[in-house]
Amino acid sequence: MRFNASKTDLLTGINIAIRAVPSHTTMDILECILVQAESNELIFTATDMEMGIETHVRARIEERGIIAVDAKMLYEIIRKLPEEIVFFESDENYNVRISSGKANFLIGGRSGDEFSGLPSVDLEDCVTLSQYTLKSVIQETIFSISTNENSKVMTGELFEIRGSIFRVIALDGHRIAIRRVALKDSYSDKKVIVPGKCLQDLCKILPGEVDEIVSMYFSRNHIVFEIPGTRIVSRLIDGEYYNVDQMISSDYETKVTINKNVLFECIDRANLFVKEGDKKPIIFEIDDDEMSLSIDSPLGSMNEVLDIQKEGKNIVIGFNPRFMMDVLKAIGDEEIVIYLVNPKAPCFIKNDELTYTYLVLPVNFVR
Amino acid sequence: MRFNASKTDLLTGINIAIRAVPSHTTMDILECILVQAESNELIFTATDMEMGIETHVRARIEERGIIAVDAKMLYEIIRKLPEEIVFFESDENYNVRISSGKANFLIGGRSGDEFSGLPSVDLEDCVTLSQYTLKSVIQETIFSISTNENSKVMTGELFEIRGSIFRVIALDGHRIAIRRVALKDSYSDKKVIVPGKCLQDLCKILPGEVDEIVSMYFSRNHIVFEIPGTRIVSRLIDGEYYNVDQMISSDYETKVTINKNVLFECIDRANLFVKEGDKKPIIFEIDDDEMSLSIDSPLGSMNEVLDIQKEGKNIVIGFNPRFMMDVLKAIGDEEIVIYLVNPKAPCFIKNDELTYTYLVLPVNFVR
Repeated sequence: MRFNASKTDLLTGINIAIRAVPSHTTMDILECILVQAESNELIFTATDMEMGIETHVRARIEERGIIAVDAKMLYEIIRKLPEEIVFFESDENYNVRISSGKANFLIGGRSGDEFSGLPSVDLEDCVTLSQYTLKSVIQETIFSISTNENSKVMTGELFEIRGSIFRVIALDGHRIAIRRVALKDSYSDKKVIVPGKCLQDLCKILPGEVDEIVSMYFSRNHIVFEIPGTRIVSRLIDGEYYNVDQMISSDYETKVTINKNVLFECIDRANLFVKEGDKKPIIFEIDDDEMSLSIDSPLGSMNEVLDIQKEGKNIVIGFNPRFMMDVLKAIGDEEIVIYLVNPKAPCFIKNDELTYTYLVLPVNFVR
Repeated sequence: MRFNASKTDLLTGINIAIRAVPSHTTMDILECILVQAESNELIFTATDMEMGIETHVRARIEERGIIAVDAKMLYEIIRKLPEEIVFFESDENYNVRISSGKANFLIGGRSGDEFSGLPSVDLEDCVTLSQYTLKSVIQETIFSISTNENSKVMTGELFEIRGSIFRVIALDGHRIAIRRVALKDSYSDKKVIVPGKCLQDLCKILPGEVDEIVSMYFSRNHIVFEIPGTRIVSRLIDGEYYNVDQMISSDYETKVTINKNVLFECIDRANLFVKEGDKKPIIFEIDDDEMSLSIDSPLGSMNEVLDIQKEGKNIVIGFNPRFMMDVLKAIGDEEIVIYLVNPKAPCFIKNDELTYTYLVLPVNFVR
C-alpha cells in the first residue's frame, strides 16, 4: 500500500476516527485505526465495539491496501511532521514508513484482517435535521444523564420522534432534561436510547453548522449519524425508558420570573460552601418580590436577596446548587420562569413553547 | 477590624500572597493569609516556613485589626463577588463578614497571634537589577535543577555575584545551565543557594518589566526579593555548591552551527519514540555538512538529516532528547553552536559572549 496526502487532511481524519478508539481496552487491535487505501481516497475506521467511526480522506493512492496502525502513534507522528505532503507506505510484513521533508518514521502496523469493521446497518429509515440543532439539543440535555452503569438506560438519552416532533430526554433520578424541536418533515414514530458516550463524541465531531445537515438512521439495534465524509454507528441501549410524560405536571402554586445570569452567579457564589460530594442544599426563600438565597455549611454561610416577579404563594425550598447551575447553563434565555408546588415536589423550569423543560427534585433541609 | 477595598486590588494582593501558602501542610494556620488593616492600607502575609510573602493593598480602613483567614476560601469568595466594592469586617470572635452588592458571606477566621510572621532580615546588602533580567535568567536555567531532595543543594540555584557580574547556575548531575549578566553597579562578592520553589514562585509574581527594578537583599540565612508593594523572603539552602568552573572546558574537537528551531522540531519528532522514564538516546551523527538524527526504539524508529556548518572532526554521540529540548527552549538565538569533544564527554551549547553556557552529558548507546 502506498499513498500521499496532505498533513491537514490526514490530521482532520485521524481526529475524527480517534474518538472511537477506547482509552482503556484489553484488545490491542482496538487501539488502532484501520487505514484503507481505496481507488481514489483513504478510509479511516476505528471502533470500541459499542461505537464505530468511519471517515473518508482525500489522498493520491499509488497502491491500494489495508493496514491497522496504532492510533495515538499515528496521530502524534502526523502532527509533528515537518512538511505538508506526507508519504505513507507499508509492506507485506506490516512495516509502515511515513515520510515528510527529510524526516522518515518507521513503525510496525498490524494486519487489517484482525480488525472488526463497523456493523452493517440498514440505511433506510432516515431522519434529517440541521447539525446545529442536533448538537444543541444534545449539549443542552446530556448533563442530566447518569454515570452509574447499574441503571444502564439512564446512561443514555432517549431520542423520540412522533410525526415531526423530535424530543431528546435525559434523566438521572434527581432531574430530567427535555428538549423538543420541530423537524421539517414528518416521520414514523421512533423511540431509542442512544449511549451518552456516543453523543458526547458526536458533539465533538459535528461541526454544528446551521445550514449543514446530519442524517440519522434508525435500525433495531443501532443508530447511524452521517455527515459528509463521516459515518458514526452506535449500538442502542436495550431496555424500557421511563415514562417521562407521567412525571411532568403543569400545575403549580408559585411561579417565579427571574434574570437567569443573576440567579446563576448567585448560586455559583453559594456553591463555594459546598464541597464535592456534600449534599448541602441552597435554600430559596420566595417572599413576594424578593427571593433570598442562603446556604449554611461548616465552611461558612452566605445569603443574598434577588429581585423576582412572583405569582402565587410564598415558599421555602432547598436545591442541590450544582443541579440548578447545570440547568441554567443550558438555557440561552435571559429571563427564565420557575414553577414550584411545595418543598417536596419537583420544580420545573420551562418556556411557554416547551422547547425546553427541566425538572429538578428539591432536597430536604432543616432550618 | 473593618475596611472596604476594591475587588481588583484585593484579588491582586491575594494572588501574590497565596503563592507562599503550602499546598500540603500539617499546620492549619499556614493555610491562612494574615490580613492586617493598618492605618491606611492592608497587608497580606503568607508563609510556608521556608518562604514568606508580604504584600500591601490599597484600602479604606475604618477600624484597624489583624486576623488570619483561610487563603483558598478568601480567594474564591472575593473572586466571585458581584460588585467592585468589597466590605470586610471581623469581630472579637474572629467571625468575618464579607459583603458586596446584596451578597453577604460569613466565615470563621483565626487569631492573628497564631500566625508566625516573616523572619526579620537585615535589609542592608542590596543588589538591584531589572525585573525582566532576573525573571529571564531564572526561567532560562531553572529546568536544570534537581527534584531529588536527597541532594538538597541541587534543588536550588546558585546566585553568584562577583563585582558587577551576576551568574545564575543550576545543575542536576546530568546537565548544567549557566546564565551570566552584567549589573549596572559593582558589589561585594556573594554566593548563595536559593531554593528552586522560591524562584518558581518569584517568576510568577514578578511582572517582569524591563524598566522596573527588583532589589535583592542578601543575609546569612535568607534572601529577600523586593518589588513595589511586595516582599518575598526565603531561607537559603545550606551547603557547599559544586565548583562549576572546574567542569567547564573550552576545548573541543567538533564545532557545529545549526538552526535552533529546525533542531528542536527534529528532536521533538524523535521524542515520540521515547516513553516517560525510558533512557532511549537520540543519536547525533555528524558527517561533514550534515547531521543525521536517529532513534530506534521498540515503538518504532525515525531518522532525519539536517544541514549544519561544521568545524573539526566527525562524531557520533547520543543524548537524552528531553535534556537537549530543554536547553534549546531556553535559548532565544536563531542559530546555536554546539561544541563536542568525544562520545563520552559533555557537549556545550554556548554563545561567544558567554551570556549562556549549557552543558549536557551524553548517553551511552549501542549500535
